[in-house]
Amino acid sequence: MKLSKRIEGVEYSAIRKLTPYVDRAKKDGKKLYELNIGAPDIDVPDIYYDTFQKIKKGPLPYAYAQGISELREATANYYKKRNINFDADDIYITNGASEAILFTFQVIADEGDAVLTTDPFYTNYMTVFEQLGVELNVFKTDPDKGFALPEEKEIEKHITDKTVAILLSNPTNPTGALYSEGEIIRIVNLAKKYDLFIIADEVYREFVYDGNNYKSFGEVGGIEENLILIDSISKRFGACGARIGSVASKNKAFNDGINKLCNCRLAAPTIEQMAAAKLYEIDKSYFEEVNKEYQKRRDVIYEELISIPGVKVKKPKGAFYVMPKLPVDDTEKFAIWMIENFDIDGETLVFAPAKGFFKNKEEGKQMIRLAFILNTDALKKSMKILKEGIKAYVSENE
Amino acid sequence: MKLSKRIEGVEYSAIRKLTPYVDRAKKDGKKLYELNIGAPDIDVPDIYYDTFQKIKKGPLPYAYAQGISELREATANYYKKRNINFDADDIYITNGASEAILFTFQVIADEGDAVLTTDPFYTNYMTVFEQLGVELNVFKTDPDKGFALPEEKEIEKHITDKTVAILLSNPTNPTGALYSEGEIIRIVNLAKKYDLFIIADEVYREFVYDGNNYKSFGEVGGIEENLILIDSISKRFGACGARIGSVASKNKAFNDGINKLCNCRLAAPTIEQMAAAKLYEIDKSYFEEVNKEYQKRRDVIYEELISIPGVKVKKPKGAFYVMPKLPVDDTEKFAIWMIENFDIDGETLVFAPAKGFFKNKEEGKQMIRLAFILNTDALKKSMKILKEGIKAYVSENE
Repeated sequence: MKLSKRIEGVEYSAIRKLTPYVDRAKKDGKKLYELNIGAPDIDVPDIYYDTFQKIKKGPLPYAYAQGISELREATANYYKKRNINFDADDIYITNGASEAILFTFQVIADEGDAVLTTDPFYTNYMTVFEQLGVELNVFKTDPDKGFALPEEKEIEKHITDKTVAILLSNPTNPTGALYSEGEIIRIVNLAKKYDLFIIADEVYREFVYDGNNYKSFGEVGGIEENLILIDSISKRFGACGARIGSVASKNKAFNDGINKLCNCRLAAPTIEQMAAAKLYEIDKSYFEEVNKEYQKRRDVIYEELISIPGVKVKKPKGAFYVMPKLPVDDTEKFAIWMIENFDIDGETLVFAPAKGFFKNKEEGKQMIRLAFILNTDALKKSMKILKEGIKAYVSENE
Repeated sequence: MKLSKRIEGVEYSAIRKLTPYVDRAKKDGKKLYELNIGAPDIDVPDIYYDTFQKIKKGPLPYAYAQGISELREATANYYKKRNINFDADDIYITNGASEAILFTFQVIADEGDAVLTTDPFYTNYMTVFEQLGVELNVFKTDPDKGFALPEEKEIEKHITDKTVAILLSNPTNPTGALYSEGEIIRIVNLAKKYDLFIIADEVYREFVYDGNNYKSFGEVGGIEENLILIDSISKRFGACGARIGSVASKNKAFNDGINKLCNCRLAAPTIEQMAAAKLYEIDKSYFEEVNKEYQKRRDVIYEELISIPGVKVKKPKGAFYVMPKLPVDDTEKFAIWMIENFDIDGETLVFAPAKGFFKNKEEGKQMIRLAFILNTDALKKSMKILKEGIKAYVSENE
């Protein structure tokens, strides 16, 4: 028996590749600061767990394939408060944003079709494209400009007759870039001109720093047929383990396709949906508080990073990622070395080597992605470990 | 913008096609006995809900992509007690059996490859094959023989050089057939002879009546490389809404493929997995009790069905489905008519027209699938409604 060609084309995500090394180090009793995965340490609001206390025992039937109406309505209300115009009927609840992304590309792209996105990009997009045989085209975003979008003309060069969509995460995983209204409009213009879908992955919407305005694609008029909005409670409420995401659109044909796929897999988990609905009723002050905490973390990690000799980095404006360039040749080798061969008092740091976030792996070879998802004390310790680690690694390899 | 060809090929499942009619009837205040969907009305054991009560508040991180070890170990223990030889490391936790089935075919089949199964078959297999461009080949199982497997030679005729696997649900959705050791061995022989995967969907394993022995593919030696075992807590513990399933194999290359896909979608829900682990610790007496109840239901629905003039049916031996032939021309039309135009005291019956379960839709046109997932009183009422409905429909259409 042999396996499918399609699965041979699928690679492990760059973020998770280190798992076996991490498992081994943990077994050996090392303490790890795991800044490689974007799983926040912030408490999920109590109201989430309160739902569990009140759950009625008895049978636990399938939820409605599209998602329970309480959650779709709560999500629509949350959107309305942010001038994002989706009704409960436009929203489909998925098993995390991951399923929303998979379903979206199943609906809009055949084998050989192409999707255009930034380089670097969120590595898990790639594994979806590999599964579906969809080509990934990219335009570069410059680290020296904080990974801002290039000019419209530059983006346009990469659109071919195979392109069916432009995909953007904003604020951005893995770089922490935040796109201005002007940058958003470039994408809107191109989508209209070439009749493309815009896939807006806005799971980090609430993580915007320095009082900057956030412009959602959902606020822009005239792209109702083009826009597909991906969302999730994972980062917003620190509830990664709930696996509740969504996809929303005003495009009826697209929604019908999504609905078919929702029916195929029957439903998303019932109780998790009920609990997620409560999260969306939360007061705005929750977001402000979380935001303040993450801005503090961002400031700490940035200050620590720029104090490390040879490290190059711009201050990220959103999400909870930063992608510095290190004075080492290959950050994947360095990452494994840090886990296996380095520690300060039994503690070391895990980060994601950046090459998995680039289409041309050579380009990200000196960069890493750090998720600032631990408290400021842990971040300070982590950056001290990084500093000393770099020093030791460089002198060992000289 | 146009959508993908792949999504145009995907149809709504036969079971769920009636949803809009059902929704409308409910809005109009009709009471429906919904025997169209296999969602049991049995209480999930309290121990499941206890986990939710006891859950520690705080952050809710992603679970391990393969599934939490407590659940994989509990599943392996449950298997061991049934002489099914899988270790925790061989088991991958999925979002319901649906995801296990999707992942399995992604790993073993490319576009144009073929999978061989029974006709009729579980309709949701089809939607997976449509998504993946995999061809479905079938061999007939005879309603007059209780949908038993045909002889080995007959099955063999349908194996081509495109065939990569034989897929079997046992006990069977949608027919309630239960395969004997002799029938199992036919499949084993063919899989060995032609080097095929065996995909055994055994989610109804505990629903076996009349004291019959159950033979799992997992008990058979010599097919370690061939066997892929699909499972789920949905039916076993009445926990459809939990969306916890699994796929298990001893084939390391296959498992590596599944692991890649598990990593792509990050994780299954954390708390649901913790609660599911507790379910697998449950005493054998739980299964005996549930079994007794379902056998009673099976007896009631069968006795009622054979008392309806013109209905042809064999007594099902397992699962909670029965597939009778009715004295009407087209059970899909009849199903809609029953929802829209018929009631006894404001109550009517919903069943699944069987044609969606057949490759050649014409063949199932006079049959329906009933899920006996309500208590015996409700089943008696349902069958009275069916009896009177048939009478009225036939006389109206004469």
